[in-house]
Amino acid sequence: MNALGYHLLLEMKDCNRELLNDPGRLERLLVDAANQAGATVVQKAFHHFNPHGVSGVVIIAESHLFIHTWPEHGYAAVDIFTCGDTVRADKAAEWLADKMGTTNFSMIELRRGVLPGVPATR
Amino acid sequence: MNALGYHLLLEMKDCNRELLNDPGRLERLLVDAANQAGATVVQKAFHHFNPHGVSGVVIIAESHLFIHTWPEHGYAAVDIFTCGDTVRADKAAEWLADKMGTTNFSMIELRRGVLPGVPATR
Repeated sequence: MNALGYHLLLEMKDCNRELLNDPGRLERLLVDAANQAGATVVQKAFHHFNPHGVSGVVIIAESHLFIHTWPEHGYAAVDIFTCGDTVRADKAAEWLADKMGTTNFSMIELRRGVLPGVPATR
Repeated sequence: MNALGYHLLLEMKDCNRELLNDPGRLERLLVDAANQAGATVVQKAFHHFNPHGVSGVVIIAESHLFIHTWPEHGYAAVDIFTCGDTVRADKAAEWLADKMGTTNFSMIELRRGVLPGVPATR
């Protein structure tokens, strides 16, 4: 389909709760996930909420990875937004789901920027 | 519905192309949009790509706002992800669409983290 962006929305339930409240480890995981996908990291911003929960983003040259965690519910929302044909968002998603220890995982796949004149992507 | 997050995905076509390539103005707009929604900004990260295009995020205490722009296509993908009942993501979306000058705008509304035991949100 002719789209500028490829957007994966990951619902990660029943994750490792300790990990969900550790911004340092989550930052390393998201950067590693970007590397798994073959993406180039350009910027990062992570925030640890009081008393618990983390919001973090890794901006990549090919768009972004985002995580919000609710440790008290064992839940994380993760988005992987990529553009171009070289990055493998699906690989990052699979790898990250494994590391997060989720035992109840689902994924929604979206196309963003469906426009005339845009080259076809996978 | 009982969900932790409320996620708006905005497709903004035919925007002001000059604005789409101006990270400083886009950063101010996203912060202003967060304020319009009644959200609390906690962190920001914006990146200007060579030769054109901007990726930016504003982390709010109630989740995040994200923008990716393709000035050469007049297009921006914007996400507004909020949690809790106090923030008005719809207000931020409407306000931002106006400022971006989009004449071809669509929006997808999603719930994230639909879990048992989570209080009902609007």
